[in-house]
Amino acid sequence: MSALRFSLRFNPMLSNITLIQTKSLLFSFSSFSFSVRKPSKTLCSSSNSLLHTNGGTSNSSPLSGLEDELVGYIFGKKKATEVAHLVWRHVLHKGDIVIDATCGNGYDTVAMLKMVADESGHGRVYGMDIQTEALENTSSLLDETVTQKEKELVKLLPICHSRMDEVLPENTAVRLVAFNLGYLPGGDKGIITTSKTTLLALEASKKMLILGGLISLVVYVGHPGGREELETVEAFASGLCVDGWICCKFQMLNRPLAPVLVFLFKR
Amino acid sequence: MSALRFSLRFNPMLSNITLIQTKSLLFSFSSFSFSVRKPSKTLCSSSNSLLHTNGGTSNSSPLSGLEDELVGYIFGKKKATEVAHLVWRHVLHKGDIVIDATCGNGYDTVAMLKMVADESGHGRVYGMDIQTEALENTSSLLDETVTQKEKELVKLLPICHSRMDEVLPENTAVRLVAFNLGYLPGGDKGIITTSKTTLLALEASKKMLILGGLISLVVYVGHPGGREELETVEAFASGLCVDGWICCKFQMLNRPLAPVLVFLFKR
Repeated sequence: MSALRFSLRFNPMLSNITLIQTKSLLFSFSSFSFSVRKPSKTLCSSSNSLLHTNGGTSNSSPLSGLEDELVGYIFGKKKATEVAHLVWRHVLHKGDIVIDATCGNGYDTVAMLKMVADESGHGRVYGMDIQTEALENTSSLLDETVTQKEKELVKLLPICHSRMDEVLPENTAVRLVAFNLGYLPGGDKGIITTSKTTLLALEASKKMLILGGLISLVVYVGHPGGREELETVEAFASGLCVDGWICCKFQMLNRPLAPVLVFLFKR
Repeated sequence: MSALRFSLRFNPMLSNITLIQTKSLLFSFSSFSFSVRKPSKTLCSSSNSLLHTNGGTSNSSPLSGLEDELVGYIFGKKKATEVAHLVWRHVLHKGDIVIDATCGNGYDTVAMLKMVADESGHGRVYGMDIQTEALENTSSLLDETVTQKEKELVKLLPICHSRMDEVLPENTAVRLVAFNLGYLPGGDKGIITTSKTTLLALEASKKMLILGGLISLVVYVGHPGGREELETVEAFASGLCVDGWICCKFQMLNRPLAPVLVFLFKR
């Protein structure tokens, strides 16, 4: 089965990636801060319920906006992928080299590209997927959302993420490797990432990651094999030395099929 | 070896990092990437490390400061209790009634009192502990850190938290019940919370909590019985209906003895 999946043909058209749209990027950030919501169904009648100060300063915080995603996750208002993007923003620098190990429909690829692309053209996004459909979707999304100049910073590779160390230039210093484990949303649910290849990809990521870099995983567990894959990820994380790595997991306890977030931070 | 390789490669680049100080939207975003919190042991030489913008606004956010705690937790810089306090701030209103189910040395009691105390005098903190030493420590901490008027809003009760529903006035509308499970720091490590009483306390909390309220647990697992207590908490959380409750867990994967955070949000 897995040999079949690896044999998908390389499509040279996919290597030409595109675009830049700084305004949309700025706009999305400016709208990012003030959208905290009240928990649904609350009886609380006092207004502005979630909007409390920390009793801190009345000045602007340069960190404004991040709280929405993380606290929103706790209160069930934000998706796991949104939380992942938030964490990436805290790790990534303009000009960084990053890997989207599972392109899927390209939303992660676009998100990380926005974070690393700058005028210098040093940023790079290596996007991988074994399914041509996924890479085509990613390419289309890039066309719709970024500039041609930005798209040129992306390399889409039709390979399994377990082979990431074979295709990146030697000694590439990677700041982020992001995984969205499971199947392609809207695609063939029979084609999934597997424990075996994910473990190989994690081992490769571990080696390529620079200090201060992050391995980010959104692990879907609702399909056959998903739970085992999570166990593989957890076992890998548990084995990373505590002095060199901070490994944490965010999980919904009463939604056993909800995606699980795992962050492995190399310090 | 690979760490060394990457260090050598990255050091010159990172040493050139500078912060751009500006209030404009455009430039505040451009400074975003260069001022990320400096992970310990990285080679990143940028100063003012924690402060980076999301490129939002120059106005104050009512939620300013929260992100530091949660992202700090992910990056190993913030304690579990600090994250718990952060989440409480998002739930609590001035004038709320709250329960510190395990007073310990009183730090949680003081923290929640500050969040609910106001001039109206409606806020209430019910603090419980089976150890007189704990209640004495809590009382002393209150004397040192809050006003007499604020202290009058606190009721310290020398009982097991499993009996909380017996001592609170009937139909008390509780917004937060907070647990710090384990033993009294600095006290007798033989006296611990147990799975049995914790489960009773959770059942009582579930009934007393208003919609929009929170059960917050910091679960220590490094002592005998701690792991079983976590399992009890998880089983309780897993059994709460998904329509009525959001139940999430934050956990360090490569530090098996680190406290685990559990939040049960009644929506």
